[in-house]
Amino acid sequence: MPQPTFKLYSYWRTSATYRVRVALALKGLKAQEINVDIDAGEHRSPAFLAINPLGAIPALIEEGQPPLTQSVAILEYLDEIAPEPPLLPGDPHGRARVRSIAAMLASDTHPLIVPRVRRYLTEAGFDADAWRAWQINWFTTGLQAVEQKLAREPGAGAFCHGDAPTIADICLASVTAVMKVFKITVPDIPTVDAIVARCEAMPAFANADPMKQAGAPQG
Amino acid sequence: MPQPTFKLYSYWRTSATYRVRVALALKGLKAQEINVDIDAGEHRSPAFLAINPLGAIPALIEEGQPPLTQSVAILEYLDEIAPEPPLLPGDPHGRARVRSIAAMLASDTHPLIVPRVRRYLTEAGFDADAWRAWQINWFTTGLQAVEQKLAREPGAGAFCHGDAPTIADICLASVTAVMKVFKITVPDIPTVDAIVARCEAMPAFANADPMKQAGAPQG
Repeated sequence: MPQPTFKLYSYWRTSATYRVRVALALKGLKAQEINVDIDAGEHRSPAFLAINPLGAIPALIEEGQPPLTQSVAILEYLDEIAPEPPLLPGDPHGRARVRSIAAMLASDTHPLIVPRVRRYLTEAGFDADAWRAWQINWFTTGLQAVEQKLAREPGAGAFCHGDAPTIADICLASVTAVMKVFKITVPDIPTVDAIVARCEAMPAFANADPMKQAGAPQG
Repeated sequence: MPQPTFKLYSYWRTSATYRVRVALALKGLKAQEINVDIDAGEHRSPAFLAINPLGAIPALIEEGQPPLTQSVAILEYLDEIAPEPPLLPGDPHGRARVRSIAAMLASDTHPLIVPRVRRYLTEAGFDADAWRAWQINWFTTGLQAVEQKLAREPGAGAFCHGDAPTIADICLASVTAVMKVFKITVPDIPTVDAIVARCEAMPAFANADPMKQAGAPQG
């Protein structure tokens, strides 16, 4: 089967783009990245809103198809069209567990610290310190909850579920990757830290590092 | 196959619990609801944190299994163990589209207006009016983006994708259901309004209405 031709609307820093970069690499798929400069407001341009009316990146474009948006939906899609290596376990309980961990991060953590929320809170009076406290609060809440889930439940192995990376690990590493950009650390998450280190040792994750992308600040 | 025995940790008002109620009903499955009084802080009790370390409801308990958490992960699980009627389309592009719409609501809209965010912002100085403006802003952003996606892309029919309800419709109706509780309306979303009306005409949705649940305010 010929490989589909993908374009990925992306930005160097964003956690959600990182997820898609990792999944494409794990699957051996390639995409041409098209830079959307969030810091310059390009995600709110009419041209990009025509691709994603929510103004959020990434968007994955497969020729002749409507844009694919929302990173976790894109990961599920890539896992369906390119099943190896699998990004979800083979059993329904395992899949539910992986999707739950992914949602703790991609739904209940990351959407709270994105640029549109920063813009709103800045206009509402948050200064830089207040915004940083907000970021730290939600990163800490989300990652410590994931830590407790991993430490308490059967299922975790070298990665969040078993011994190969799944959508849960991709979401986990995507959150810690953006925390590094902001120089934020969360204490008391040894299981999370060990899993993220194993992810970062894999080329698919290492090459998705925000600081290695075009547009990232130098040095 | 014998029906699994479910317990659903729930609260009358929450959007995420509504989603699971609807999916169970559409599948002909039953669960015993166990009330977690969020307004009294019961979701942050040690007993509930042992079930979900993030302190979020719902949690679906299947006897002998770890708790299932995160509403959309639960919907995917129910769709796998009870495939009829399907809550996702049969093709990968359709599934990606449905999951993307669901995430616009369950990831990029709803997590911004939950009690823990209200608590943080209240402590940061938001009064009741500022909180209401925040709620209205994110409901409006999310629903108007979904409206544009529905109006622009092929795929929508009587429901978000085709002519039967999917996970996208469940998430959509869950957001409008909680908006009704808060007496918030969003303008200029005719496609959304029509789809929600079709959902509400179905018993599975109508019976999940927050105002019809135990614990809801009377009259």
